[in-house]
Amino acid sequence: MTNRQWVLASHPKAAADESTWRLTQAPRPKPGPGQILIRTQWLSVDPYMRGRISPSANYTKGVQIGEVMQGGGVGEVVETNHPAWKVGDIAESMDVGWQEWSVLTPDLPGASRVNKVDTAVAPAQASLSWLGMTGLTAYVGLLDIGRPRPGDTVVVSAASGAVGQIVGQIAKLAGCRVVGIAGSDDKLAWCRNIGFDATINYKTEGDMAAAVAAQCPSGVNVFFDNTGGSIHDAVLKNLAVAARVVICGRIALANNFDQEDTGLRASSRLIVTRATIQGLVVFDWWHRREEALARLAAWHRSGAIQIREDVVEGFERIPHAFIRMMAGQNFGKQLVRLEGG
Amino acid sequence: MTNRQWVLASHPKAAADESTWRLTQAPRPKPGPGQILIRTQWLSVDPYMRGRISPSANYTKGVQIGEVMQGGGVGEVVETNHPAWKVGDIAESMDVGWQEWSVLTPDLPGASRVNKVDTAVAPAQASLSWLGMTGLTAYVGLLDIGRPRPGDTVVVSAASGAVGQIVGQIAKLAGCRVVGIAGSDDKLAWCRNIGFDATINYKTEGDMAAAVAAQCPSGVNVFFDNTGGSIHDAVLKNLAVAARVVICGRIALANNFDQEDTGLRASSRLIVTRATIQGLVVFDWWHRREEALARLAAWHRSGAIQIREDVVEGFERIPHAFIRMMAGQNFGKQLVRLEGG
Repeated sequence: MTNRQWVLASHPKAAADESTWRLTQAPRPKPGPGQILIRTQWLSVDPYMRGRISPSANYTKGVQIGEVMQGGGVGEVVETNHPAWKVGDIAESMDVGWQEWSVLTPDLPGASRVNKVDTAVAPAQASLSWLGMTGLTAYVGLLDIGRPRPGDTVVVSAASGAVGQIVGQIAKLAGCRVVGIAGSDDKLAWCRNIGFDATINYKTEGDMAAAVAAQCPSGVNVFFDNTGGSIHDAVLKNLAVAARVVICGRIALANNFDQEDTGLRASSRLIVTRATIQGLVVFDWWHRREEALARLAAWHRSGAIQIREDVVEGFERIPHAFIRMMAGQNFGKQLVRLEGG
Repeated sequence: MTNRQWVLASHPKAAADESTWRLTQAPRPKPGPGQILIRTQWLSVDPYMRGRISPSANYTKGVQIGEVMQGGGVGEVVETNHPAWKVGDIAESMDVGWQEWSVLTPDLPGASRVNKVDTAVAPAQASLSWLGMTGLTAYVGLLDIGRPRPGDTVVVSAASGAVGQIVGQIAKLAGCRVVGIAGSDDKLAWCRNIGFDATINYKTEGDMAAAVAAQCPSGVNVFFDNTGGSIHDAVLKNLAVAARVVICGRIALANNFDQEDTGLRASSRLIVTRATIQGLVVFDWWHRREEALARLAAWHRSGAIQIREDVVEGFERIPHAFIRMMAGQNFGKQLVRLEGG
C-alpha cells in the first residue's frame, strides 16, 4: 500500500544527474470527491522539464525541493469518484508526476486536464507522444507559427527527436522541402527514410552556416528550432525573405540553463529578411488539440507519418531516461514503461 | 548648367566619415519621355543609408563606388515631359540622390514612386519625415507589427529620433504607457514634453536591464527597437508574456556594420514569454501609405503629434549631416536644406 516517488533533491547547476532526484515512498493516496486514482503505466520525459527544476523564472511554477517531480503520464484507473470515469479506463494527464500511483482531478481545465485514452486508436503511450502534447507541439508550431507554404524550405533541428520527427513529416505533407539537423548518422539516415529531403550532422560539420547554405540554396523559409545555441545561429544566417522561426526548445543549452545565453543577435538578419521569430509553449495551444490529434491519427493510420519511440524500462530508471534524453542519447520520443505498462 | 553630386568614394570600414563621399560635377541632366527634371530643395539622411554604402548583402542593391549617393529628396519641377506634372509642382521621391538636379520617372512603381507634395497641408520637407517614409515606418511598425493594446507598456529606443518620436506619440493615442530611451537629458525632457510617460538615459544608467525593469514593472508589451546592441538586450530581458518586438534599426552598431553582431540570444526569453520578434523594412509597406499619411496629417493638424526637425544647411554639408545623425548628435529628424529649399 505504498507509493514510490521521485522527489527533487537539488536544483542542478548544469545538467541534471542522478543526484538531482531522490527516491522516496509515501502511502498510496486516496481519491477525494470528483477525483480518480490511477496506477502509472507510462511516463514521458521531455526537455521542458529542465525548466521545471531550475530556480530561474520560467513560464510556470517549478518543482520545489522535496516535491514529487512533475511529468505527464498514462495509467489505469483503479478507483473512481467521478461519474465519467470507471475502473479500467486509461487516463493521460500532465499532472501524473514521477510516482507509481497518482490522484487526478478530471474536471480541472487547461494543462491539468485529464484525457481518456482510446487504446483502439493507438497504444496508450502514444497519448504521451505523437497523439498528445508532443504531436500538438509539432502541429501548432509548424502550421500555426511556421505557416509553411508549398515549395518552402523547412529546417528542423533535433530532427529525429520527439517533436522534430513529426514536424519534418507534416512539413512534407504541406509540400515543403525538409532539411533535418541531428547529431548522428544513424538518426539522419532514419530521417531520410521517413521523408526528409536532406540532412546535416552538426557533430561532423566544420562550418554549420556553410552546411545549411549548401542544403538550402534558396534560403530557409521556416526554421523549427528545438536546440538553440550555435545550430540556431547557423540557420539564422541563412534565412530567406519573410522567413518564420519557431523557437520550441534550446536543448543545446541544457548544461548552461540558468546562464546568460550569448551568440548571434538576430536583429540585422531580421531587418534584411523581414523575418519573424516567435516562441512556442504548447500549454498555450490546448484549443488546437482536437484538430491536431484527429489529423495526426489519420496521418498515422494512412502511414503518412511514422513514429520512433525510445523506451526505458522501470520506475527506478526515470532519472536515467531524462538524463540520457537531455544528452541526446535517445533516438526518438523518450518514454519510460512502468510495471503494467 | 552643371549638376553638383556627392558620389561614393569608398565603402567605410566602420562609421562613415568625410572621406566616404567625393564632391563631383556633371552636366545638368535632361528629362526623357515621361520624365521630369527637379531642382533639389531638401534631402533626407537616414540610418538605412548605412546599409546602402556597405559591401555586405542587404535588402536592396547598394551604391557602387563612383555612383551618386542614394537618398530621398524633395524638389521643384523645372522641366516636364509627363502630362500629370507641370513646372512649379513639388515632387518627393526616394530616387532623388545627393545631387542638385535630378531626373525622375513618375510612372515607376513601389519605392521609386514620385509623390506630388501639397504644401498647403505641410511644408515640403514634411514629405521626407513625418508625412512620408519616416511617418509610414513609425505607423506600420507600431500598429501593424507591434499591435499595441490600451494599457500596454511600449518601449521605444532612439525615442527622440525621426521614427521614435512618432512611434511614442502614436502609442499614446493607442492608450499605451510609453517609455523612451535616448542618450541625452535634453532629448528625454523633450520626449516627456510630447507625452512620453517615462524615459531612460542609456548613457548615464549603469544597469540598463534594471532601469527598464524599474520603468516597466509589468514588463514590456511592445518594444520598438531603433538601436539594437546592448539596449536591445536590456529590453529583451524585460519582455512581458506575448510581447511584440519590432526590429526597425540598429544604429548602435553603425560602427560595426559589417561585423558579426553578438550579444544576448533571444531564444530563452521567447520561450518563457511566447513573444514575437519581427524585422521591418518600410519599403514593404507602401500599400499602407495612404491610410498612414492621412491619419498622421490629421493628428498633426489637431496637435496630437508634434514633430522636431534638425536642419543642416547647404549641399556641401550633406555628408556632415549624415555623419552627425549616425553619431546621435541630431535632435529630431535630420534634414538638409539646399538653396531654394
